[in-house]
Amino acid sequence: MAKSWATFGVDLHVEPTGPGVRRGLTEALREAVRSGRLASGTRLPSSRSLAADLGIARNTVAEAYADLVAEGWLTARQGSGTSVAPGVPPTPFGQWGSPVPAPAATSAPGRPARARPAYDLVPGTPDLSSFPRAAWLKASRRALTVAPSEALDYGDPRGRVELRTALAGYLARARGVRTDPEHIVICSGFVHGLMLLGQVLRGRGLTSLAVESYGLDVHWRLLEAAGLRTVPLGFDELGTRTEELAAGAQGGGALGGVRAVLMTPAHQFPMGASLHPDRRAQVVDWARRGDGLILEDDYDGEFRYDRQPVGALQGLDPEHVVHVGTASKSLAPGLRLGWLVLPPSLAPEVVAAKGGVDWACGVLDQLTLAEFITSGAYDRHVRASRLRYRRRRDALVARLTERAPGVSATGIAAGLHVVLRLPPGTEQATLRAAAWHGLAVHGLDRYRHPESTAERSDALVVGYGTPPDHGWSGALDALCAALPFNGTFHNEGGGGLSHGIELPHE
Amino acid sequence: MAKSWATFGVDLHVEPTGPGVRRGLTEALREAVRSGRLASGTRLPSSRSLAADLGIARNTVAEAYADLVAEGWLTARQGSGTSVAPGVPPTPFGQWGSPVPAPAATSAPGRPARARPAYDLVPGTPDLSSFPRAAWLKASRRALTVAPSEALDYGDPRGRVELRTALAGYLARARGVRTDPEHIVICSGFVHGLMLLGQVLRGRGLTSLAVESYGLDVHWRLLEAAGLRTVPLGFDELGTRTEELAAGAQGGGALGGVRAVLMTPAHQFPMGASLHPDRRAQVVDWARRGDGLILEDDYDGEFRYDRQPVGALQGLDPEHVVHVGTASKSLAPGLRLGWLVLPPSLAPEVVAAKGGVDWACGVLDQLTLAEFITSGAYDRHVRASRLRYRRRRDALVARLTERAPGVSATGIAAGLHVVLRLPPGTEQATLRAAAWHGLAVHGLDRYRHPESTAERSDALVVGYGTPPDHGWSGALDALCAALPFNGTFHNEGGGGLSHGIELPHE
Repeated sequence: MAKSWATFGVDLHVEPTGPGVRRGLTEALREAVRSGRLASGTRLPSSRSLAADLGIARNTVAEAYADLVAEGWLTARQGSGTSVAPGVPPTPFGQWGSPVPAPAATSAPGRPARARPAYDLVPGTPDLSSFPRAAWLKASRRALTVAPSEALDYGDPRGRVELRTALAGYLARARGVRTDPEHIVICSGFVHGLMLLGQVLRGRGLTSLAVESYGLDVHWRLLEAAGLRTVPLGFDELGTRTEELAAGAQGGGALGGVRAVLMTPAHQFPMGASLHPDRRAQVVDWARRGDGLILEDDYDGEFRYDRQPVGALQGLDPEHVVHVGTASKSLAPGLRLGWLVLPPSLAPEVVAAKGGVDWACGVLDQLTLAEFITSGAYDRHVRASRLRYRRRRDALVARLTERAPGVSATGIAAGLHVVLRLPPGTEQATLRAAAWHGLAVHGLDRYRHPESTAERSDALVVGYGTPPDHGWSGALDALCAALPFNGTFHNEGGGGLSHGIELPHE
Repeated sequence: MAKSWATFGVDLHVEPTGPGVRRGLTEALREAVRSGRLASGTRLPSSRSLAADLGIARNTVAEAYADLVAEGWLTARQGSGTSVAPGVPPTPFGQWGSPVPAPAATSAPGRPARARPAYDLVPGTPDLSSFPRAAWLKASRRALTVAPSEALDYGDPRGRVELRTALAGYLARARGVRTDPEHIVICSGFVHGLMLLGQVLRGRGLTSLAVESYGLDVHWRLLEAAGLRTVPLGFDELGTRTEELAAGAQGGGALGGVRAVLMTPAHQFPMGASLHPDRRAQVVDWARRGDGLILEDDYDGEFRYDRQPVGALQGLDPEHVVHVGTASKSLAPGLRLGWLVLPPSLAPEVVAAKGGVDWACGVLDQLTLAEFITSGAYDRHVRASRLRYRRRRDALVARLTERAPGVSATGIAAGLHVVLRLPPGTEQATLRAAAWHGLAVHGLDRYRHPESTAERSDALVVGYGTPPDHGWSGALDALCAALPFNGTFHNEGGGGLSHGIELPHE
């Protein structure tokens, strides 16, 4: 039986028992804010009193509040309780949300092709051996059987309407994205989307774009090829220093005049944190005040293991955020399917950049993915994948604790990669040791923007998505053997490192 | 039993009887030239004496000679018989040819998306209702079942090797293309291929590119967006005046310094002629002398109805011709699959332009098309399509003869469109009449390059691919009703036209 909570004129229907209660409360509160029923600045009841009102556990309310603070819907201040965040606007779009948030489909950094070593822990690729071939073929058959002939013609530059409709619904419930099929543009993966955005921003007269201190150089190069200089924001223990955008808007310098920023708010790539709630609020505020644009690279948002994923930044301000998603991490990069969720004011330019018709994206995979999502097969696949990757991450952390206690896994329990902090000065030696053990893995240094002023730190970026299940244990052994503090390595401090095994020289 | 012809030291094995004798002779002669066994300038025996030697009909030899003259392998001069064309080089590639030429897979002009009228005779789209859905799904199942997991990863920027291998074999036997899988690059249809080529040519310092007087403005605009001015070559009753390239190389003017040309040699789009053998020879000679590059848009090469298709220009000089093909006409534009067959010297730049990995083309359709080709399903589909389109073209010509005798269908019996010559000054009025009859059709004027100096002529460009079979007869009726000389229109000469029906004013 649902209870109704009418404080502040809000009808909040929440099932008081069962596993969905936290989800239900979170979504109901989010919806109340979204719709304007809970206005900006409204102070919410304490978790204790709301819990008593609803007849549910206090912890459940506290967790729902925390989720919404992390997503930027609410703010929590010491001594002043929890309030609706300032400036959260009512939705200008149709109602695509559903009451149960679920795992999300998103975009993701790619990486250059390479020969596969014995063990591949380079981040960027999911476990391709678990691609759901049978379910995909089934969806393909159903999609092609019902598709009208005109679907096979030169088509709408935004991509097939079936897929845009499926995505609008899915992204609303899984990622809190607020949009409609008219403002989604299908692209050939994240890179194609970024190329289109770069072209449009350059066409608007932009000459530079802020990026994070850590990211993928292929993205920076693409933007620079489009004529946009990339300027890195600082990075500290709270994540990317988005406050520098507002300071730059006032103070000039490299960030002076910067009107767009590329970010990975849900799961910083590669550092692994989700953007601090204050910083989420700051970047949205900056965009709103100065008509700035946030490019949200939501590459692996559905793979969170310890809690509901942080909702998309786009949900906070659909007018100033481009949400970019991809099937490359949730399914396979070879599909070359991604999507841009665009502010209505930007959509016509992106459509024009893509061309008068869709020259880029094959319709058959689009139709198949639409069927795959609407049939529920996508949710099932994401759930199975989440379990697989979670087990791998847990095994990795447990093995490290046992075999390399001096190395710490950092970042949230999410995604397909983890950052392992190394003792100072040991990154290059560890990479050489890894190569010696037949292990492909990347150091953090290659993900650091060349102009970043963030403090350097030594770390490995370990992707645990790529090896097939049967290869994971061997990959872990090789990784542990390559790490300092594994019983054969000894850090002698000051960057010096003596190895218990002989290392090849570079 | 095969007879051997050892004149000039050439062993020419030809089955003397059966339906393949002309094909077999043509291919054997082509192979003898290709391999250098018949050197440039060698005079061939008369058709009478070769026929006697081989024990086959004289006509068969004459037809084979004519085919090879049309393709540029041989030259025929009044009074001096038939010789091997000057400058035809031996192949620098591996042997991909097979002894039986067959229908070809190729590239094709696209067109903007639009709402469909009652009858759609705009050229550019095949009959989508005949897309071989069941066979495609079957190929898709087989392809995905056997594909290695790594096929689903970020891949080779050239595209999947399975498809490149299938295409190398197919294009050799169907179009006389000489290449290997290493020098084929898969792209998202012709437009993507042209974008890559434009980028590469601009990167080489080119600032202009010759095009034909008639073509697609979307191609010209793409090239111009890449920084390449398009300069039209003249056009006369023999087709595109390729001799202007050599003259320009010497004389300057707009064509001075032009080092690349985009052409549709097998079936000029939209005019419908195949390039005259002399002009084929001229353009290849120009490219060879000045290190020029010919971009061969082979959009519908497999749809020839009266004889074997003219072989690809690329076969004459793989070092100076980029052969561009597409599945958009043979299967469906929505697949977004095309291919570039590249001179080895150009391939690395195109691969670099496409990116370090294949960001563009989905692997599943690539794997499916590879299976579709190698299983023979592609040949079967092309044969069935050829029959369908040939019947449509025959019906069109017959109906015109009966109902609009003053309108002549021009161009070779090939492809998915025909040009209908109209009395001078009647094109615009005819287009208005067509719209009145619910017919979408284009006038020739929109395909004429704005800087062309070719004599203007009034004509309709009628695509007979698009309507489904059941709609074709009605479309023909509407077309005939819209044409002058249909019994209700009367040309009064001098561009004046009075119509037996009332026309809407524009």
